[in-house]
Amino acid sequence: MQLGVVGLGRMGSNIARRLHRAGHQCVIYNRSPEPVAQLAAEGLIPAADLPSLIKKLDPPRAVWMMLPAGAVTEDVIHALSGILSAGDILIDGGNSFYKDDIRRAKVLGGKLITYIDIGTSGGIWGLERGYCMMIGGAKAAVEYLDPIFKALAPGLGAIARTPGREGRDPRAEQGYIHAGPAGAGHFVKMIHNGIEYGLMQAYAEGFDILRGKAGPGLAEGERFGLDLADIAEVWRRGSVISSWLLDLSAMALAEDPSLSKFIGAVQDSGEGRWTIDAAVEEGVPANVLAASLFERFRSREEHSYGDKLLSAMRAKFGGHVESASKNPALDR
Amino acid sequence: MQLGVVGLGRMGSNIARRLHRAGHQCVIYNRSPEPVAQLAAEGLIPAADLPSLIKKLDPPRAVWMMLPAGAVTEDVIHALSGILSAGDILIDGGNSFYKDDIRRAKVLGGKLITYIDIGTSGGIWGLERGYCMMIGGAKAAVEYLDPIFKALAPGLGAIARTPGREGRDPRAEQGYIHAGPAGAGHFVKMIHNGIEYGLMQAYAEGFDILRGKAGPGLAEGERFGLDLADIAEVWRRGSVISSWLLDLSAMALAEDPSLSKFIGAVQDSGEGRWTIDAAVEEGVPANVLAASLFERFRSREEHSYGDKLLSAMRAKFGGHVESASKNPALDR
Amino acid sequence: MQLGVVGLGRMGSNIARRLHRAGHQCVIYNRSPEPVAQLAAEGLIPAADLPSLIKKLDPPRAVWMMLPAGAVTEDVIHALSGILSAGDILIDGGNSFYKDDIRRAKVLGGKLITYIDIGTSGGIWGLERGYCMMIGGAKAAVEYLDPIFKALAPGLGAIARTPGREGRDPRAEQGYIHAGPAGAGHFVKMIHNGIEYGLMQAYAEGFDILRGKAGPGLAEGERFGLDLADIAEVWRRGSVISSWLLDLSAMALAEDPSLSKFIGAVQDSGEGRWTIDAAVEEGVPANVLAASLFERFRSREEHSYGDKLLSAMRAKFGGHVESASKNPALDR
Amino acid sequence: MQLGVVGLGRMGSNIARRLHRAGHQCVIYNRSPEPVAQLAAEGLIPAADLPSLIKKLDPPRAVWMMLPAGAVTEDVIHALSGILSAGDILIDGGNSFYKDDIRRAKVLGGKLITYIDIGTSGGIWGLERGYCMMIGGAKAAVEYLDPIFKALAPGLGAIARTPGREGRDPRAEQGYIHAGPAGAGHFVKMIHNGIEYGLMQAYAEGFDILRGKAGPGLAEGERFGLDLADIAEVWRRGSVISSWLLDLSAMALAEDPSLSKFIGAVQDSGEGRWTIDAAVEEGVPANVLAASLFERFRSREEHSYGDKLLSAMRAKFGGHVESASKNPALDR
Repeated sequence: MQLGVVGLGRMGSNIARRLHRAGHQCVIYNRSPEPVAQLAAEGLIPAADLPSLIKKLDPPRAVWMMLPAGAVTEDVIHALSGILSAGDILIDGGNSFYKDDIRRAKVLGGKLITYIDIGTSGGIWGLERGYCMMIGGAKAAVEYLDPIFKALAPGLGAIARTPGREGRDPRAEQGYIHAGPAGAGHFVKMIHNGIEYGLMQAYAEGFDILRGKAGPGLAEGERFGLDLADIAEVWRRGSVISSWLLDLSAMALAEDPSLSKFIGAVQDSGEGRWTIDAAVEEGVPANVLAASLFERFRSREEHSYGDKLLSAMRAKFGGHVESASKNPALDR
Repeated sequence: MQLGVVGLGRMGSNIARRLHRAGHQCVIYNRSPEPVAQLAAEGLIPAADLPSLIKKLDPPRAVWMMLPAGAVTEDVIHALSGILSAGDILIDGGNSFYKDDIRRAKVLGGKLITYIDIGTSGGIWGLERGYCMMIGGAKAAVEYLDPIFKALAPGLGAIARTPGREGRDPRAEQGYIHAGPAGAGHFVKMIHNGIEYGLMQAYAEGFDILRGKAGPGLAEGERFGLDLADIAEVWRRGSVISSWLLDLSAMALAEDPSLSKFIGAVQDSGEGRWTIDAAVEEGVPANVLAASLFERFRSREEHSYGDKLLSAMRAKFGGHVESASKNPALDR
Repeated sequence: MQLGVVGLGRMGSNIARRLHRAGHQCVIYNRSPEPVAQLAAEGLIPAADLPSLIKKLDPPRAVWMMLPAGAVTEDVIHALSGILSAGDILIDGGNSFYKDDIRRAKVLGGKLITYIDIGTSGGIWGLERGYCMMIGGAKAAVEYLDPIFKALAPGLGAIARTPGREGRDPRAEQGYIHAGPAGAGHFVKMIHNGIEYGLMQAYAEGFDILRGKAGPGLAEGERFGLDLADIAEVWRRGSVISSWLLDLSAMALAEDPSLSKFIGAVQDSGEGRWTIDAAVEEGVPANVLAASLFERFRSREEHSYGDKLLSAMRAKFGGHVESASKNPALDR
Repeated sequence: MQLGVVGLGRMGSNIARRLHRAGHQCVIYNRSPEPVAQLAAEGLIPAADLPSLIKKLDPPRAVWMMLPAGAVTEDVIHALSGILSAGDILIDGGNSFYKDDIRRAKVLGGKLITYIDIGTSGGIWGLERGYCMMIGGAKAAVEYLDPIFKALAPGLGAIARTPGREGRDPRAEQGYIHAGPAGAGHFVKMIHNGIEYGLMQAYAEGFDILRGKAGPGLAEGERFGLDLADIAEVWRRGSVISSWLLDLSAMALAEDPSLSKFIGAVQDSGEGRWTIDAAVEEGVPANVLAASLFERFRSREEHSYGDKLLSAMRAKFGGHVESASKNPALDR
């Protein structure tokens, strides 16, 4: 079928490309023209602006936005809501906040435009592996778009089927679900990312402790000369903690076990933060997810005002004078 | 080759069984006779006690203990150290504390007996999937036992090879490593379990928050009627957080999304605790691993003295009288 | 001077009472009539409803609301905004969210009514000890109300003066500050409560660990027969951790070291939650404040869905069957 | 009465000085001679070495060691145990590990020497304020030494008495307790320090969030121009979170609200670590105390290997390239 795709960053381009390769017709637009030209050369249909993209689609139209969450997405929704028609479908495949989805679905619904929110996971691997999709919005539109989802999803692949799923929604094991009404898709994706932070931090802390026994200069029994690349690799095989994130860690450690090209200042995106807000709102304890987010905050600071206040208190009660510089020996 | 196996619980029995099926000769002993009889019926060689097990093995002997860590393992080592000969190899495949390994290796080394510590992961799936093994101890003995490890390990299987591993130890991608000297095997396994706690807790918190949007009785925008079994399933396909623990979660949730047969009192074993001790000893921050352990402690208490003290303080400064009972509506 | 007081709960009644005793004239109103009658008997001026309260005050009027945050406060502001006049001052002394203050100040400012937000600490002890006040809003109104603040604040009292405060705002050491523009008062109070949770949880965890060495039935070296009431008392004298919360803990423990009249289900209020939201919004790590909030959530649950999922995973990978009930021996 | 004091650092010197001023006779020794000479000039009795110190004391002797925990204390105990006589008392007033106390008390008990462990709090303020003491060891010796404890303790002072303590041990409100048998004193002091870390971290996080609203360059409603020195001061008066640590914070912030002379690398001592070990050993959740310790570890690292692994995973799954340097704007 036919789909408009707006926003051709790494994710948007590959989504359009994967759909095109599966035989769907993609009309594409991007603010900067380079990715449009690139994909046009591969046979996708370029549009010069939003109105011409809309004109090139047959009603009822479906347009997939793959844009930075927040103001950019909001602006494009505003622009499209003026040129789309009753019966059209507007899809936000980015990382929007689920409460924004609920609001937008209501507003667009007033114009009989259906708003669909899709949490899309897969990163730069999605073109090849397919995308895991968590979809929110009206049932009819989700079913209408099913060929698109089927083409984007990974499908069963080589992954073993879960026993006991007879009678359950078969889409889940193809790699996409209709999670619920508007907002549900991004809510599930938000929690997905919250969990992702937690999993990553668990590996990070484990390897950090391992590294303490890896290095030279330790007494007997204190150092084991551990090979972190081999440890990551062996855990991929038959261990309880095998995962895709471990696969990626094994790749990175095989390239350079010292990880020296990374400075160690880790970004976070909205979903990790909103997950904690959701936990607080629901009254659910989430120590691990919160600590994972906080470590990312911490990683981007060299010095913290809070730590200085600790030193100030110590100086006041004990006369402790904290050493004037960080210990380079501790720089891991 | 030939191996003695002492301790035929679920793990020990299946290790012996997998070796036997691979053509190795296993002499087996267990304190209670049932599993010995069971495996003897499958063709393994039974022994009535430790001395007769030793007698049935040709020197240099190799004996694999698969016993509860602590006093039980210690007692059997003591007994075996009296009847093993110079050149023999004693393997502890259980979950011993790595500092115990270092001590034991020294003591047994004085009798020219080689002590090997192996962290073994795989659980009840190991018979079929193979066991991931992290091995500590002297190089010569580890190489001598290689046919045993090869037979127990999962091998390459269907798991993609990690790019960039050319020139690295090929055993890692077969599912076993020689981690380092005595203690190194159990140290790496200890961290494995520490990470395992963290990964599990990350999923647990995420699904707990999801569940807040799953149930009935919430206002519009507050509930999504989420299907947790389908969510676990879809994340197995193409998402960033796919893992074996997620596969298992998907199985459990497909059986019963309410998980009502579980009371929610979670045990912990030594490794999770020792991981925190190691982090503290090394001075490595480990908020996620610690919080994961603490939640297990907390799960086994209905009421905490600390919480009562919070209520007592609140009563004293604000006159707050905490409700006399837990809120059943909050009972998740 | 003259002040209207709306909302005569424990805090509101005592604020009015303390002002009356200091010679100020208080016109009082409360939805239910009992506290009005009670205070009228003490000489304060009763009002039957909001309009009559307004009528009994001379312009420019000042009205202090001491109401539950959220809908109740919002409703009364709405009602008062219709009957107050340009030049009047409306004070919210409750625990409102600081972003609500910013919005309200703007709206009321349009009618030339000044909105003042005051974070008020002191609990049931305030009548006697005085109230610590963190004030947000326009400078002129804050200065106009100074006699009210002076009367409510604790003053210097027996507390030693902080060296080095020469030249700084003298109000701080009297127990009140003009923190900043609208919202600043409740923002500072919010963080005050966030810190309060953290302090309380630190004591709670410490006494919980102490208690592990207090009880009978432990081996030598494992039990010390600690007297928790005496420990709390001794720490009040010359130790680094003396505090008012410790004073209150010492009182509670002197009454009953087992704290058996408390069930251990601890409530939380908005400020603790908003503190975490603010930390997340600012990107500031706040592991201790978050963990303190999460423990309150946890204290109100007997069983957690997350813990059940941990058990379910353990059952799937290791065949572990978690015991069917909590261990009463662990019930602290 | 008479007391030997060994170890004249800041704490040891002031303890001897306070005892001398109270009329007790102190025989003093220190490895480096300067503090001995200093105190001799004030009238205390110098000793040139341990044997001469012993000789100058009348039996039964009491010797108070105030030395760095670990090897130094262990060595002096070894030396003294050879020259003390049956009936003598050896006091460790430092910060030893409580399990070391239990062992030492047993060994010295074999020579009829009584070992007393005292956790001593008060820091550089103790000379003036007195010392809070938590004492472990045999009852008879603790009672024999009572005049010493009475002289060192703060006494009732201006601190209000706790209601309901009638019939309880009167020593607690003088500022010292006999906590229990050998080890109990240092165990209670260890938890004291664990709590101290938690309290300090709660303030540190709170002020760190406040600071986010203090600075320039924020949008309206995002900045309040908060004065952190005044906030600390106002909380000292009538608020729920007043404490001695807040008093000290108020002093430090009055001197310099930017705390710019502190680098923010915070040391930790054994007690904070042992507290976590004790929590793990007892199975008591201690998220706040652990997070407080971990932040100190983290404060001493510029870059963490764990954080680099997070960046490496992000690069692998999303092609994210983490910025090559820390954001100086985030440097708080």
